[in-house]
Amino acid sequence: MLGLFLEDIDEGLSVDLGSYHFTRENILRFARKYDPQPFHLSDEGGFRGPFGGLSASGWHTAAGWMKCFVATNDAARAKLLAAGKTSPEVGPGPGFTNLKWLKPVYPGDTVRYSSRVTGKRELASRPQWGLVFSMNEGFNQKDELVFSFEGKVFTARLPSP
Amino acid sequence: MLGLFLEDIDEGLSVDLGSYHFTRENILRFARKYDPQPFHLSDEGGFRGPFGGLSASGWHTAAGWMKCFVATNDAARAKLLAAGKTSPEVGPGPGFTNLKWLKPVYPGDTVRYSSRVTGKRELASRPQWGLVFSMNEGFNQKDELVFSFEGKVFTARLPSP
Repeated sequence: MLGLFLEDIDEGLSVDLGSYHFTRENILRFARKYDPQPFHLSDEGGFRGPFGGLSASGWHTAAGWMKCFVATNDAARAKLLAAGKTSPEVGPGPGFTNLKWLKPVYPGDTVRYSSRVTGKRELASRPQWGLVFSMNEGFNQKDELVFSFEGKVFTARLPSP
Repeated sequence: MLGLFLEDIDEGLSVDLGSYHFTRENILRFARKYDPQPFHLSDEGGFRGPFGGLSASGWHTAAGWMKCFVATNDAARAKLLAAGKTSPEVGPGPGFTNLKWLKPVYPGDTVRYSSRVTGKRELASRPQWGLVFSMNEGFNQKDELVFSFEGKVFTARLPSP
């Protein structure tokens, strides 16, 4: 996370991940490929559906978070590397819990994502890695919470001196 | 689920959702758009990364589940409608929990998804809907469990007579 080693990440660290803009085009493109439910495919389907209009697949909202998370980490890491520091790539995630789609995301919405570190743990089984736990949220342009989940990600530990 | 009303869905109902084939092309396309980490973008990045080769974004594995879930429900519903029965569209999901990416998914892998009903609940706040809870899994062609999560989905109740 942010190009940091496990040792440099503390509970409470809060990161603005930037935002993802949902357009009619990207909503339809994602839905046709992965989530072709009527309320993700057309205005008519949306109006007849549970959200009163065309809305983005929840998995698209999640993918927008991932895109922003990767971009933020890459930028932070590039800055550290440019300054001559050592900086690990962000590791994979073994999974997560409590994902909530709290409000629909409509065409024209911009969702701003954030991540806040809620804890970390060393791993006996993988001494070169730890796990960082985080609370992740997405707010639309009206500042309504539309999306959240509790994540975890493998994070490299400082190389032994 | 399966075009059924809440009343017709019982704990233990188990559904084969069909499969999704991961190709180099769809892995790269998804990763470039939503999860551009080195180990999802190229063989070289994959070999240097944690999984020994190019692998699919975990969110792509999840999106493959969604695609199969929608297709299975649509086909079951079409059959019921063709037989002159009343059948509700599958409702939206408020979220889910305990998503696990257990093994990497590589180009050429085919993941077969399934869903098993673990419970259901009526909703006091929305008398026309209930919630169906499910355990969802994805197995690759070697029968290794690669993906699972505990889902829930709004499901229409039988209209009052």
